[in-house]
Amino acid sequence: MRIAYIEDMDHWRSTFSFSIPIKVRFSETDLFGHVNNTSPFIYFEEARIEFLKSKGMFIKESEAIPVVSDLQCDYLQQMYFDESFDVYVKANHVGNTSLDLHYMVLNEKGEIALTGRGRLVYINPKTGETVSLPEEMKELLVKN
Amino acid sequence: MRIAYIEDMDHWRSTFSFSIPIKVRFSETDLFGHVNNTSPFIYFEEARIEFLKSKGMFIKESEAIPVVSDLQCDYLQQMYFDESFDVYVKANHVGNTSLDLHYMVLNEKGEIALTGRGRLVYINPKTGETVSLPEEMKELLVKN
Amino acid sequence: MRIAYIEDMDHWRSTFSFSIPIKVRFSETDLFGHVNNTSPFIYFEEARIEFLKSKGMFIKESEAIPVVSDLQCDYLQQMYFDESFDVYVKANHVGNTSLDLHYMVLNEKGEIALTGRGRLVYINPKTGETVSLPEEMKELLVKN
Amino acid sequence: MRIAYIEDMDHWRSTFSFSIPIKVRFSETDLFGHVNNTSPFIYFEEARIEFLKSKGMFIKESEAIPVVSDLQCDYLQQMYFDESFDVYVKANHVGNTSLDLHYMVLNEKGEIALTGRGRLVYINPKTGETVSLPEEMKELLVKN
Repeated sequence: MRIAYIEDMDHWRSTFSFSIPIKVRFSETDLFGHVNNTSPFIYFEEARIEFLKSKGMFIKESEAIPVVSDLQCDYLQQMYFDESFDVYVKANHVGNTSLDLHYMVLNEKGEIALTGRGRLVYINPKTGETVSLPEEMKELLVKN
Repeated sequence: MRIAYIEDMDHWRSTFSFSIPIKVRFSETDLFGHVNNTSPFIYFEEARIEFLKSKGMFIKESEAIPVVSDLQCDYLQQMYFDESFDVYVKANHVGNTSLDLHYMVLNEKGEIALTGRGRLVYINPKTGETVSLPEEMKELLVKN
Repeated sequence: MRIAYIEDMDHWRSTFSFSIPIKVRFSETDLFGHVNNTSPFIYFEEARIEFLKSKGMFIKESEAIPVVSDLQCDYLQQMYFDESFDVYVKANHVGNTSLDLHYMVLNEKGEIALTGRGRLVYINPKTGETVSLPEEMKELLVKN
Repeated sequence: MRIAYIEDMDHWRSTFSFSIPIKVRFSETDLFGHVNNTSPFIYFEEARIEFLKSKGMFIKESEAIPVVSDLQCDYLQQMYFDESFDVYVKANHVGNTSLDLHYMVLNEKGEIALTGRGRLVYINPKTGETVSLPEEMKELLVKN
């Protein structure tokens, strides 16, 4: 198991503090009997938005909206209907107009079921142009 | 099999002319191995919008948008991954501000897999108030 | 507002006791800015399964699985991202091989946002044949 | 724009031959007015399965099923409701028990809207153990 965005798994794991609980819905499974590969991105999105809201950075009627620029997921364990997980998010890197977010999903035994990462870019929804993040936002994002 | 919105199944079946093809996606199945009960509403929506577009009644940046007021589906046959279907739609009744649409889904043998219906209301997206349908629209809707 | 499966709304409302909380996910909205019409059926399914589990009637590796036979939803209010709701379910009628379930979704003010109903049939997953519900199950289902 | 799994974009682009058409569904959009970030993974899955089927490598009742081991997507352009795209897939690398697949999504002008990649592992659905790909399969996969 080598994941390009994780140097040391134990250290990486210790750097998260924000999480939300999720429970697998029946409609998120597929005929192979497990969680469909598209469902973790729903969990990532829910956790990402709650994380941004906790930092005051997800405002619905805003002049700058966060748009996903890339996204990836590593499936370390199969997930099943009715199981409960904690979805962790952190800002791994904060740029001038973008964020690199990391994701970690733990099962009830505390084992890592999924890891992930992805870049968000703040854009002006009318012009489509990138928007600089205020300095106080950047500081807030990297604080635990 | 008695479905409140269908008097005579053979006659009802003969009243449809507009349809779109769909093919069941893997992600639309669930762990019971069949199409999840939420997926037919995705098919209904796709067929409904194509039907409205064919009548010039689905315009994205419009002053009147169609909002679903109620929706129902009768599951006559189980559906499976990779199967192909035709999703038929018709305007069963056209009111002043709303439409009653009927849906019929046929499998490749021509058997009815699903039936459905639902009411659409045209509203002004800014005020939320209902909007009257122009007379020429109403005529167009009931024409085959 | 007249809904065929509700005689008296105030009385109907008072007959529910089981509910689960849900919060609208971003991915459940659409470009009209509200919850997409397909999403309530995801909420109904989650509530239905929790209700059946609470009665011991949803067992994953079972000889009888509940299959949706019909389903309907009345959209009384538009729902929006990040809003919280309670999804109520009850067994309105218990037959020999099937259940008629009713659904009620309340917003945070206690107003009804959605109502719904649908029939579930218990079938043998191998043969596809209907399976009779044991008497003690039937009694448990109608008990609050 | 630098994407780790693409060395030279023009060359990379020329290496695809298999594709399927998709059209964005209304339910795949979100309140930002564009395609939700989770939807491209549905398109990838549909294209992936069609690709595997075209090689005889997706058999529903099989002793070896393909399970997604990792998945990533780069969003080069925003996508909108009702737009049509071609989703290309190729086997970038074929291992003993796994495949590395690449994805490219072109808009109607022939511009790249999305790129992606992900690893598939063949496992025995009963034991969960990896299964070796037959030599003739491996050869077939890298042939255009």
